[in-house]
Formats: sequence, structure tokens, C-alpha cells
Amino acid sequence: MTTVTRFLLDESRIPTTWYNLAADLPTPVPPLLHPKTYAPIQPSDLEHLFAPEIIRQEMSLERHIPIPDAVRDVYRLWRPSPLMRAHRLEQALGTTARIYYKYEGASPSGSHKPNSAIPQAWYNKQAGIRKLATETGAGQWGASLAFAGQLFGLEVMIYQVRVSYDQKPYRRALMETYGATCVASPSSGTEIGRSVLSRTPDHPGSLGIAISEAVETVLASPDTRYALGSVMNHVLLHQTVIGQEALQQMEMAGDDPDIIIGCAGGGSNFAGIAFPFIGQQMRGGRSRRYIAVEPAACPTLTQGRYAYDFGDTAGITPLAKMHTLGSSFTPPGLHAGGLRYHGMAPMVSHLVELGLIQPQAVQQIPCFSAGQLFARCEGILPAPESNHAIAAAIQEALRCKRDGTRDVILFNLSGHGHFDMTAYQSYMTDKLVDLSHDEHALNEALSALPVAG
Amino acid sequence: MTTVTRFLLDESRIPTTWYNLAADLPTPVPPLLHPKTYAPIQPSDLEHLFAPEIIRQEMSLERHIPIPDAVRDVYRLWRPSPLMRAHRLEQALGTTARIYYKYEGASPSGSHKPNSAIPQAWYNKQAGIRKLATETGAGQWGASLAFAGQLFGLEVMIYQVRVSYDQKPYRRALMETYGATCVASPSSGTEIGRSVLSRTPDHPGSLGIAISEAVETVLASPDTRYALGSVMNHVLLHQTVIGQEALQQMEMAGDDPDIIIGCAGGGSNFAGIAFPFIGQQMRGGRSRRYIAVEPAACPTLTQGRYAYDFGDTAGITPLAKMHTLGSSFTPPGLHAGGLRYHGMAPMVSHLVELGLIQPQAVQQIPCFSAGQLFARCEGILPAPESNHAIAAAIQEALRCKRDGTRDVILFNLSGHGHFDMTAYQSYMTDKLVDLSHDEHALNEALSALPVAG
Repeated sequence: MTTVTRFLLDESRIPTTWYNLAADLPTPVPPLLHPKTYAPIQPSDLEHLFAPEIIRQEMSLERHIPIPDAVRDVYRLWRPSPLMRAHRLEQALGTTARIYYKYEGASPSGSHKPNSAIPQAWYNKQAGIRKLATETGAGQWGASLAFAGQLFGLEVMIYQVRVSYDQKPYRRALMETYGATCVASPSSGTEIGRSVLSRTPDHPGSLGIAISEAVETVLASPDTRYALGSVMNHVLLHQTVIGQEALQQMEMAGDDPDIIIGCAGGGSNFAGIAFPFIGQQMRGGRSRRYIAVEPAACPTLTQGRYAYDFGDTAGITPLAKMHTLGSSFTPPGLHAGGLRYHGMAPMVSHLVELGLIQPQAVQQIPCFSAGQLFARCEGILPAPESNHAIAAAIQEALRCKRDGTRDVILFNLSGHGHFDMTAYQSYMTDKLVDLSHDEHALNEALSALPVAG
Repeated sequence: MTTVTRFLLDESRIPTTWYNLAADLPTPVPPLLHPKTYAPIQPSDLEHLFAPEIIRQEMSLERHIPIPDAVRDVYRLWRPSPLMRAHRLEQALGTTARIYYKYEGASPSGSHKPNSAIPQAWYNKQAGIRKLATETGAGQWGASLAFAGQLFGLEVMIYQVRVSYDQKPYRRALMETYGATCVASPSSGTEIGRSVLSRTPDHPGSLGIAISEAVETVLASPDTRYALGSVMNHVLLHQTVIGQEALQQMEMAGDDPDIIIGCAGGGSNFAGIAFPFIGQQMRGGRSRRYIAVEPAACPTLTQGRYAYDFGDTAGITPLAKMHTLGSSFTPPGLHAGGLRYHGMAPMVSHLVELGLIQPQAVQQIPCFSAGQLFARCEGILPAPESNHAIAAAIQEALRCKRDGTRDVILFNLSGHGHFDMTAYQSYMTDKLVDLSHDEHALNEALSALPVAG
């Protein structure tokens, strides 16, 4: 009864710098390539897409990058976020492990995404940009950028994957409440959208297509820039506030994690919790296990090829060396757990290649089963994405129970699932099935990779 | 930039006792009456409805009632809740006022309701009860009791008002994820439900009918007790953790509220924030303004009669002296803002009669407009109920701007609105209309009051 549950930091403990893992890597991450020449990209190649400071951060090798006061000031609305000890989950599992989670769901949009949306909007505002364009799937990133744009007086235009736009009107309503404009993608407003629609009028959309539409819009409008919610170095950088706070909070708890777990779609929330710990290790600190958990239906890290690929479907973004399922890959429609992107953050991919991160794919039914158990024990109903991390944490805790080991497990609870209740309903009414990726579709998508792997 | 936004307390500052305003009232609250004899109720009359400790608390005149360790231990999942300074809202309004809000939406179910659900479940478990029955409208209370029951191993049966059951499946999914059973009310499982359905097969339901069904279920099952989410003294008592924490946090902020605001449906979240401050005043402290805000479509405090009335539609609950619109009153279907109960907490009503609380009714369009402005400034998208408090806070802040006064305003942000996006959609697509109560229906409902006012 006297064990503390929540480890809270006061506002003065919000990090003053982001931590850049690029400064501590044994070998550098392969550079982005130009989409036409395939030559390593130069800062000037990105000028039409991003504000100057964002380009600088994308390519920076400095270890610590200052967080602007204006950004920290907005972070104070929900940061430092709580670190929690999952006492009741431990008891329910009967485990000898100690389980901690960092909770990012108390942010304005209910996930970790505003950690990067706020600085991205701020740097664009500082650069005199008037408008941002972006893509979103279920809407976590879109809602975060909508809020960030509103705060700094930027218009925000969001291409939302059509199947989410139609089936998940609530997150769209949130984006609109924050003042953004949402368009279903593929749309008739871009060449790429029209081209997709002419071939497949009822196309359900994909993140890859929505990215193409957002980038096309940006390239056609000099006062508009692009904002991405994951994958790129600067996004991962911004998310390191999570792990930096967790370092302080684990110290408050008098514990040190042996295993650090995050779910991985594009890689940003995994990077957010893991990179500051990996950085300690790189600089001579103790070694730990880092587990990146992805859905079996979109198994980028475990089944993808480590190769150069486009970030989008139309092939107008730069290419990145990453684990990829091919930019035309889409997971089966029955997959309800998010994390649907065909690629992975180049820096996360690089760490997997270096053997520093252990990837793991999990099926969706055990994910929702883990999420339900977590909700019944700890109260918070997790986002389907976060359920992947919980499933892996439970698996490790049960291993400890069998072995009698007392590992300390830390995972990132990246968001709440209050906008995802249809997925829970499907789970509870036995409408979910365990899925594997479509082997044929995967081979086809991989064979279309632009650069030989 | 150096002003603090969030005032956080550590776990040791969770109150160890609930504050009972009954101990400090100048005149006692009129007693409940027996539904058959109309005689003042005795503890034994309530034994089939409530656990013994709950009955004791309902009638207690002790100032401080200890919070069991097991309850404080669950509170630690989200308590102490943050007190926030609304810097950006102040700037947007250009007000000279300072605005603070206490945020209860980070609880497991997204509102203040678990503050009472947890102790109610605990006391029933201690009394050997196996099962709880309750009613819910949109589901805030139902979800909270579902979680509380799950924690202590009690079955939970929830009668959900049919129109919400059909139109708001997501909060129902949350209740089911927590392990509760939900039934649409009116149901065919109770005599009262069957009687309503025989007259009106497509009856949309009401809180009053759902309460009748839950109470009928309880009276028929010796191992089942009833749990109520507002109105009664013990529920208001449990909510005083909110105001007790706010007292400490306003002191941290170095400020002292001149005006305290809460929305009022049954009265529990208003009481939660206001009673500890009112208690200080009763014991010789400074006087403040306390504003209870209700919807114009269900104007219990501003248009109701102060009279004895039943808590439910079928007339099987005890009678309470309260402001009431008559137990058959239902607000117009187009009302989207919650707070739909026909009566009001007897203790809140009593304070209104004593002139200590100032009631105020607001229209729904200004409520949603206030909620949207708040979301754009502060990030949190408020529950429609909480929007009533925000609307009144904004009104006071604009008065200060006109007068040049520097009042300190504190309101209770009782929950987030992530389950209420259809209401926001209606607002944004101009589908909401300002409503007044139906004068004819009100007169009819009032004329049916069981005891002459």
C-alpha cells in the first residue's frame, strides 16, 4: 500500500534539449536519396518541403538540440507526462517482474504525437510559412498537428486515408474542432489522387497515397510546407522528451529498466522512449534489451527488406534506407491495430541492423486481449497501437514468472483508445481474426522496390 | 514564459478524509422520505439498497470521514488530478481575470465519476455483496462503476438509457471492456420496463426510468445493491477530494479563487469542487461566489420547484427535498449537452435556498462555442457537460475585462469529450439549436409532484 504508483515531475524537469542519437551511433545512418537523381540529398533539396530549422535537425549530428521556450511552454500543458508502476497488472500476472509504463495519452490529442507537432508548427511559423499539409491514418497525427497549427496561427490541411475518414468520423471531428481542414484521400484535388481514382474510383486509400497528395500540394504552393508524424530523424528527435523524462522518473522510482518496449509503425514512439537509454549505453552505460513491436499484418522490421525505398506511393518523396514492405504494400483490411506504414524510421532500421534493437511481430487478437487485461487492471484503455507494446511486456513478465527472474520492464503507453472503440467491439464480439501478411502481395511490393536491396 | 501551467501534487497529498459539508451547515438538509409512508427515512429502510457504511455516510454529520486505504490506493492511478492555469484562454479573451481549472478527465473513464464509484464498490465488497446494479445516461457513470466493480471482483449490471445505448455505442464498449453487462432501458427484464414498453414500444428511455429498473432489480436480489452516480449526500461527499486538492493547489499557485464554477446535472461535480471552499466560508473564512451551471433545456435549479419528489420515474426510490422539474420531465431530444436529470442533489438545492450558491442556466450553442474555444487554446476537448462551466467562466472573465477587475476564477473541468464527438459535429455543422424547456411539459410534470411544494 505504500508503494508509489505515479512518478510525477514538475514543469522545471521538462527537458531543455532533445537528445539526438545520431551523435552517438557507431556508424552513421545511410543518407536520404533524391527521388529523381538517387544522389544523397542536400539540405537545399528539402527547402520546398520543410522549414530550415527542421532540415538542420534532420541532418544534425549534435548530441543536444535546444527546445525553444515557446515549445516547452506548450509542452507544459501535459508534460512531464506520468511514469506509472503497473502494480495491479503485475498482481494479475503473478509475475516476479516489475512493470512500469510511461503514459503519453494525457496529451491534447490523446497520444505522443504532439511532442513533434508542436515544434514542427513552431519552426514553420518562425520561417514565415502560412500553411501546413500532412497526411493521417486514424487521425492521431492529424489531430495533433491541427492543434499545433491552431496555437501558432497556421492553416492545416490534412489528407486522411479514406477508409478512416469514412469509418472514424470522431477523430475527424476532433481535427475540425481544432480548426483544420480534412480531405478524404485519394482526393480529386491532386493529380496523384485523380490518377488513383480514375483507376479505382472506390479506392480505400493508404498512408503512402495520402503522403503523396500532401507532398504534391506542398510542392505546388510556395507558402505551404509539409509535416510528417513519424519516420524522419527530426520527428524521432522531438519524441526523445519521453525517454529523457523516463530516465529521471526511473531514478525517482529507484529502479533501472532491463527491458524497454515500444510499438513501432513509423518508429517515433519507440524511438521516443528508447533512444535516450540507447544513447547512455552507446556512451558506456549498461546494456539493455530494446524491443520494437509491430503487427504481424504489417511486419516491416521482421519480414521487410532493408533497402532504399520511397516514403510515399507516387515516388515523389526522397528515398530512405529502411526496412520496407514496398511502398505499394497495404495490410489486410481486417487489421484493426494501426501501425500500417510500409516502411520504418531509417534510424530504427539502422539500429536493428546493428543488432541493438530486437524486433518482434504480434498478432492482433493477443494484442487486444493484452489491452483488455491492462484496462481492467490499470484503468486506462490503451490505443490499439499501444496494445502491441503491452502484449510484449506481458510476454516478458510471464517469462520472468516462469524463470523466477526479477526483470524491470518499461514500456511506452503511447496513447489512449477512446477513439478506437469499434476495434474493441470487434474484439469482444469475436470479429477479429489473427492475420498474416499476404505473401503474394508482399513479394509483388518488394519486387517493385526502386533500388536493388 | 515562467508562469507555471500545471500545479501537481504528489501522492502523499491525496486527501485522507472526505469533507462532509453537512457538519458545517447553518440548518440541516431536509431528510429523505420513505416512498410509501412519506415518513423520514431510517437507516434500516435503506438496507436493501446500500451497503451499511454507505448508509452511515449518507446520514453522517461528522466533518471528516476517513478514506479507506484501499480506495486511496486506487485513487493513485490518477489522483491528485492536475490544477491548471488557463494562460492561453486568458490571452484569447484579453481578460484581466486569472482562470484556473481542475481537470478530472485523466481518470480511467475520463470524468470525475470514479471518485465515488471506487468507494461505493469497495464498501459493497466489504459488506459481502456480489453484484451492483445502476443506471447510466451517456455512460460516464456506468463506465466508472464498471471499472470499480472489476477492480474489486463485483459483477456490474448497467441499465443504459436506450437512446444513448443505440446512439453512443462507444461508451457502452468501454463498459463492456471493463467487464460490465449493459442493458438498454426500458428493458423487458423488469416489470417497470415491460410496463413502459407496453405503452410505448419505442420509448427512448430516461434516467428516471433506468433508475427505477436498477432499483427494482436490486429489491429482487438479496446479493445485489444499488449504486448511484450523483444526487445523494454520500456521492457528493466522495467528490470532495476534488475541492480539497484544489485548495492545496490554489495555495501552491499563490492565488485564491473569488469565483468557483461547476456544471450541475445531479450536482456531484459541482459539489466536489465547491463544498470544501464553502465549508471554509461556513467556518469563518472569506466569502466567495459559487456558480452552479445547468442547461437551459433542463433548468432544474432556475425553473424547478423546491419540493419533495421521487428520484425515479416509477416512484420506488425515497423522496428527496430538492429542486425538481418533476420525475416525468425529460429535456427535448435535441439537447446535446448532458445534465439531463429531473432533480438536483438535496444538499445543492438546500444551499441555493440558503442563498449560498448562485444557479445559472445556459443555452447549448454558447456552451459548445465555449468548449471549442477552450479546446483551441488549452488543447483538452471538454465533455459537453463541462462546457457549461466553461461558458460561465468565460462570461465572468469577459465581465472582468469590461470592469477591469482581476477576479480569480476556478472551474471544474469534469471530463473530456472524446466520447461526445457527435455533439461537436452537430455544433460545427450548425445542427444544434438553442432550446428552452417545454413549458407545457414542465407544468404537467410539476403538477404531478407527489407532495405539495
